[in-house]
Amino acid sequence: MTSLFTAPTGGRTPDPSLAHRRADATVTLRGPDGAPLADQDVVVRQTRHAFLFGCIGFDLVDLAGGTSQDPAYDGRLADAWFDVFNQTTLPFYWGTFEPERGAPQTDRLLRAARWFADRGVVVKGHPLVWHTVQPDWLLGLPDAEVERLQRERVRRDVAAFRGVVDTWDAINEVVIMPVFTAQENAITPLARQKGRVEMIRMAFEEARAENPGATLLLNDFDLSTAYECLVEAVLGAGIRIDRLGLQSHMHQGYLGEERTLEILDRFSRYGIPIHFTETTLLSGDLMPGHIEDLNDWQVESWPSTPEGEERQADEVERHYRTLLSHPSVEASTYWGLSDRGMWLNAPGGLLRADGSPKPAYDRLRGLVKDEWWLAPTTLRTDAEGRVRFGGFLGDYTIERLDGGGAGTVTLDTPGAVTLEGKLPHAA
Amino acid sequence: MTSLFTAPTGGRTPDPSLAHRRADATVTLRGPDGAPLADQDVVVRQTRHAFLFGCIGFDLVDLAGGTSQDPAYDGRLADAWFDVFNQTTLPFYWGTFEPERGAPQTDRLLRAARWFADRGVVVKGHPLVWHTVQPDWLLGLPDAEVERLQRERVRRDVAAFRGVVDTWDAINEVVIMPVFTAQENAITPLARQKGRVEMIRMAFEEARAENPGATLLLNDFDLSTAYECLVEAVLGAGIRIDRLGLQSHMHQGYLGEERTLEILDRFSRYGIPIHFTETTLLSGDLMPGHIEDLNDWQVESWPSTPEGEERQADEVERHYRTLLSHPSVEASTYWGLSDRGMWLNAPGGLLRADGSPKPAYDRLRGLVKDEWWLAPTTLRTDAEGRVRFGGFLGDYTIERLDGGGAGTVTLDTPGAVTLEGKLPHAA
Repeated sequence: MTSLFTAPTGGRTPDPSLAHRRADATVTLRGPDGAPLADQDVVVRQTRHAFLFGCIGFDLVDLAGGTSQDPAYDGRLADAWFDVFNQTTLPFYWGTFEPERGAPQTDRLLRAARWFADRGVVVKGHPLVWHTVQPDWLLGLPDAEVERLQRERVRRDVAAFRGVVDTWDAINEVVIMPVFTAQENAITPLARQKGRVEMIRMAFEEARAENPGATLLLNDFDLSTAYECLVEAVLGAGIRIDRLGLQSHMHQGYLGEERTLEILDRFSRYGIPIHFTETTLLSGDLMPGHIEDLNDWQVESWPSTPEGEERQADEVERHYRTLLSHPSVEASTYWGLSDRGMWLNAPGGLLRADGSPKPAYDRLRGLVKDEWWLAPTTLRTDAEGRVRFGGFLGDYTIERLDGGGAGTVTLDTPGAVTLEGKLPHAA
Repeated sequence: MTSLFTAPTGGRTPDPSLAHRRADATVTLRGPDGAPLADQDVVVRQTRHAFLFGCIGFDLVDLAGGTSQDPAYDGRLADAWFDVFNQTTLPFYWGTFEPERGAPQTDRLLRAARWFADRGVVVKGHPLVWHTVQPDWLLGLPDAEVERLQRERVRRDVAAFRGVVDTWDAINEVVIMPVFTAQENAITPLARQKGRVEMIRMAFEEARAENPGATLLLNDFDLSTAYECLVEAVLGAGIRIDRLGLQSHMHQGYLGEERTLEILDRFSRYGIPIHFTETTLLSGDLMPGHIEDLNDWQVESWPSTPEGEERQADEVERHYRTLLSHPSVEASTYWGLSDRGMWLNAPGGLLRADGSPKPAYDRLRGLVKDEWWLAPTTLRTDAEGRVRFGGFLGDYTIERLDGGGAGTVTLDTPGAVTLEGKLPHAA
């Protein structure tokens, strides 16, 4: 049977036990001379999750660049941020990145990206091609000129950030792109002329040309069959998608486990790891279901409420448990840490506008850094120098309690693994 | 600029005057000796519309085969049918065509198809591949076996009907095919395994192999962006679609001119002629808008009402005027002549259950055979043997009033045309 894509036979069955995210490691520790370290006390510490727990970093760009208007507040935000997350999304909207033609904010974003990267965070740029938040100066140019400028823009920014930003939403919301009517822009007419697949090819080929090792996503909010058809179109056209981005702004209510798993079942068929790229859950009133474009809901005040905060905490926990239960999910990015400056003014943050944590923050932190995290654990090696421990996939340090140095091991495949660890410093 | 499809620059602007469907012909008539027939009286008669005014022929299959249970009623139906339509759709649902494996109803359908074709009607088979109305004996077979049988089925039936049925809905409703859940069937799992594009490739390549000259349609009820994405997928995969089929069962209300033109604007971008393949407009209560799958609406009685019949007549007229106004539309098929035996019991027929015409029938007939039709017209040739007449694209006979024979001309391009006509019979 000819198949457009390799339908994976395994690895697609949800497992709430998360066994597919855990390893049981047997590590033989050796000293600088290569001999097993028998009967030694060591402390094992987890230092990184393999799963990408992401959050946008928009509101920390100023702090990172030393231009924060409120360093105390932003500092608290940063502390909360780094206590939970290991992946961030930074804003590369063309209209705000280069409002004046030829004067891109490369330095400002590069400072922010380096600030995150230096702290061990995976940085994603969002997005290289989109029809919204476009520079005014593109309007009225001929399609061919818009395409030339768009290609140049992709190459310029991917090249400038290579080595710091190696993950990109190459193109955003292509399902609606050629039929988007809410705002005049220069990209929709181009998409109408070229077609969706060729728009995608353009974004991916230009980004790939400048950074062959980059992780490139196709990202969309449309999780209907339309997006499936588009993915099949892209695969059929021979365009390599590294990761499939699914947005999930749940301003109109939590999807629920059943619908989330149904979506995952449909989109995992392509054998492409899935990133939940834009997750929002509210701690206040929900947006009415009849609003089709979330941007159409403009309210003066949208408070976080005590009942809303309890519901949000439950839903955040359910959502993350559901996503991690599915082996195809590799990342989940929350869309906004604090309510201050939230998209649409919505109470979707994990912190309140004053920076204090909502229950959802504590709940998520409890999963990421407690239930799914190995607390520092003292173990004693056996006669062959072996220690055994279990934990989530990620990085661990193993430190000799006698001051004999520390080493690092990475658990990157689930199940039982046998590893070697060197603790190179002399005692 | 690379483009998946050639976005046509012209031929896509709606024109309610229908000038794009009309020609003004100057025909020089010559006798058997080749000399111009000067100063002769002739009658010009339109005999065929180039536009395909279609209607399903399901309820005439028995009459065509000589097995009608009610020949008087069916005869009236047939008279009404042939007075308006020049294209038909016949049922090739695998489950009813071959309910017993190895015993397809080829003879019965071949009789019906020939009966229509002998009367100058273009016959379409519907559909070669679909996930609904499937034979029970497919259930439980391995995917690879289902694919083999499906391929054989397409080849067998296309070959058996070649020369009589040369138009096929090659595959039906692919957007939903791999995620269809309403009924267990063997095609959905196959589509899930192969992907949509490869299902389409299978249908088209097998049909094309047996009838290279056939007109093959991709047909769907989903007129959202999902279908656009699918069309782009198919074009990107290099599969040739001859005609794009759009269903329009309007049980929940008439689409209206604006939405219809918006749909046509989106789907005409691919440069593929469009067939409105399944049009229904009701002359009774509408189905509530919250019903997602029309098949879920099961009612005991669904009467045609006087007010409903007036509304239906208006909507049928508006719908056909809108479709013909768009140059990309080549066919419109109405889904059911009489209310007797209508899908879902809906009062969507152009005739009542007793066979009497509803106002919609008269209105449609008035367009097709009066306003858009050249009534028999007596003209006199000039000194050079020329007559001039204007009419809709299609076939016309020109007959000498002196018994000197008749000839045929075809108007197949809009605007002013100059033709030669031979009236070969001696006077």
